Amino acid sequence: MLKRAMAILKLEEYRQKIRTELNNVMDFWLKYSHDTVYGGFFNCIGKNGKVYDELKYVWLQGRQVWMYCRLYRTLERFHRPEILEAAKAGGTFLRKFARVSSGSGQWKCAFCLTRDGQAVKVQRTIFSECFYVMALDELSRVTRDEDMRKEAEQMMAQLIFWVRVDPKGLGRPELAGDTPTSSMAVPMMLLCLVQQITDSREQDVVLKYMELGSWCVQQILQHIQRGGTAILENVSPEGTELPGCQGRLQNPGHALEAGWFLLEHAKQSGDQQLQATAIHKFVELPFKCGWDREHGGLLYFLDVDGHCPTQLEWNMKLWWPHCEALIAFLMAYSRTKTPHLLETFSQVFEYTFSHFSDGHNGEWFGYLSQDGKVVLDFKGGPFKGPFHVPRCLYLCEGLLDDLLKNTA
Amino acid sequence: MLKRAMAILKLEEYRQKIRTELNNVMDFWLKYSHDTVYGGFFNCIGKNGKVYDELKYVWLQGRQVWMYCRLYRTLERFHRPEILEAAKAGGTFLRKFARVSSGSGQWKCAFCLTRDGQAVKVQRTIFSECFYVMALDELSRVTRDEDMRKEAEQMMAQLIFWVRVDPKGLGRPELAGDTPTSSMAVPMMLLCLVQQITDSREQDVVLKYMELGSWCVQQILQHIQRGGTAILENVSPEGTELPGCQGRLQNPGHALEAGWFLLEHAKQSGDQQLQATAIHKFVELPFKCGWDREHGGLLYFLDVDGHCPTQLEWNMKLWWPHCEALIAFLMAYSRTKTPHLLETFSQVFEYTFSHFSDGHNGEWFGYLSQDGKVVLDFKGGPFKGPFHVPRCLYLCEGLLDDLLKNTA
Repeated sequence: MLKRAMAILKLEEYRQKIRTELNNVMDFWLKYSHDTVYGGFFNCIGKNGKVYDELKYVWLQGRQVWMYCRLYRTLERFHRPEILEAAKAGGTFLRKFARVSSGSGQWKCAFCLTRDGQAVKVQRTIFSECFYVMALDELSRVTRDEDMRKEAEQMMAQLIFWVRVDPKGLGRPELAGDTPTSSMAVPMMLLCLVQQITDSREQDVVLKYMELGSWCVQQILQHIQRGGTAILENVSPEGTELPGCQGRLQNPGHALEAGWFLLEHAKQSGDQQLQATAIHKFVELPFKCGWDREHGGLLYFLDVDGHCPTQLEWNMKLWWPHCEALIAFLMAYSRTKTPHLLETFSQVFEYTFSHFSDGHNGEWFGYLSQDGKVVLDFKGGPFKGPFHVPRCLYLCEGLLDDLLKNTA
Repeated sequence: MLKRAMAILKLEEYRQKIRTELNNVMDFWLKYSHDTVYGGFFNCIGKNGKVYDELKYVWLQGRQVWMYCRLYRTLERFHRPEILEAAKAGGTFLRKFARVSSGSGQWKCAFCLTRDGQAVKVQRTIFSECFYVMALDELSRVTRDEDMRKEAEQMMAQLIFWVRVDPKGLGRPELAGDTPTSSMAVPMMLLCLVQQITDSREQDVVLKYMELGSWCVQQILQHIQRGGTAILENVSPEGTELPGCQGRLQNPGHALEAGWFLLEHAKQSGDQQLQATAIHKFVELPFKCGWDREHGGLLYFLDVDGHCPTQLEWNMKLWWPHCEALIAFLMAYSRTKTPHLLETFSQVFEYTFSHFSDGHNGEWFGYLSQDGKVVLDFKGGPFKGPFHVPRCLYLCEGLLDDLLKNTA
């Protein structure tokens, strides 16, 4: 009885810390990132909130619109006009400027824009377009703008065509030695979008994306390799191991993120076996291989055969794998109540909150050395915005709310 | 008199260490990197000499051919049949496979090939083609193959066209926000090729490239910014500072490399003022801003206004800036006999030989943490092959030979 009361107190303490942290993190972005002249958001923001570069990254513009709208829509304390207005301005900026007409079709989005919206760089991948869909779908839920929702679905159709039918429109040259590769990022991202688009929608929308969701799950499961002992980031389209560094690459944070996407899918579809696979292979396994036993924290990249990865940042501790680990372990615990899952959540929580969170200036540092020192001290950069941190805090707060409700 | 004798002894000691190191480094590549089945060279080689990936990188294939031929042609102890044969096999591999016909014209080279020569990736830059020229020009000097020399010159003409007339053939989309940028790498690389192609050639060849050489020098000098207090990596084509991170970026190793390219040009053209500028602005200044006073070694990237660079590896110590610093300071000393230039050479020499050189398995480690620990332990990787290290040792040995000859 005492033990149970202690456990509840501990969960309550996490919830309090996480709720406060979410408020502080959002305050940082609300205060420093809005471009009230051109719309959209500044992305490159130094440790104290100062803008150090005016470029606007489409991934981050889309993610920020999504995060603002999700918080506005689902949490009372974020249902504030300034959050809605900023999200709408971000959506307007995206719709006006993100899509580049030059090159490969009217649906291709830029990767990076000038402050006033001119395209600087286009990536030959699908990710700018994915965050465009995510932003517009969530924003249309808030504004009840049916045209916007349809535009999100049209972009989604383009994405599916690039991934499953013909990638030519992405602009990559066809090369004889460029063997087909299934990168885990692609089905993960599409599964995330399926969950976004179908969430609480009418049955016809759910049915429309059902096969795609299953396909994404199957594609993700193909990355379980080496007789179930490793998640590999890149495999062949048939699910066999690829040669060389690319084939041996492990990205524990990515596997953990896939883990909670799979747990969401398992819950929606009531698939107990998928839940078990998600927890054993995509939550426990990547943590085991990726956690640095000497210094703590999750390593960024590993080679499954123990070679040194060729990515210079392989041994750094990045903020986002820790965010994904917190979600994955807390979600896995909430589904199973297996104690060691909560223990690992605690372990990751202690490292994360003591190393990444900046109690002085707000928000989180993103990039630490292997031994846990801050190496890059900005809060926003080309790949870091208000997404992984607030999404993690938001989802963990919700999971803790449910856990505490059920213990009451 | 005693002081002079001591100085000579010290130079002799450096020469001995450098000569021995060059032999050991070349032994490593001769032993482990030759692909006797498909020709060309393995690039990804672990700390003990084991191939960990079979991909072949065109930059590195070209550089290895160049290095082998230069050593074969100019140093008696490397005038060995196995070196010539490997270089010829490398040249054959390059000519057979590097150029990709798909995409943007028959001169575009791949960035990366499979072991058997199929194109895996094409970069939308000029550097694969630059190392192709470097390789073929040097190889043609050894084999006296006039067709090969002409092919190198034809590729050079294509490069000049891309850089000075129309970059469209490189395959980058034209984007409104992609403001024209002069990256120091481009004129540096072309100046290096001018020096390669014209070295000891007939006067008509020298005259043909004279204007290009001067243009490259002027372009490089435009990177002196902030009233002469900084070398910035990217400027506008008119030589003004660009906004944002890109405009504030400093790459001390690159500036030092430009420094000795300029010193070579100053010697050939007898330009005393250029020599002084090269030493003050491209040798002393980047060392002053790039040397890590706490841990020693040269930082990889810096922001001229003291913001944190967005490159995750900004604080790492890479092998090649140290190689370039050794050449730059020893060359600057050999031209001026200014004592402090030799003192800085010694300082860089001590750090470099004690941190990068692997006395146990041979060759050098390439990537250290800020505090000097080996972070990536391979000897060859996608951007590291037998180029910066042996080129540095080869040039320093030559400079020391000349210095010691003149003191005799």
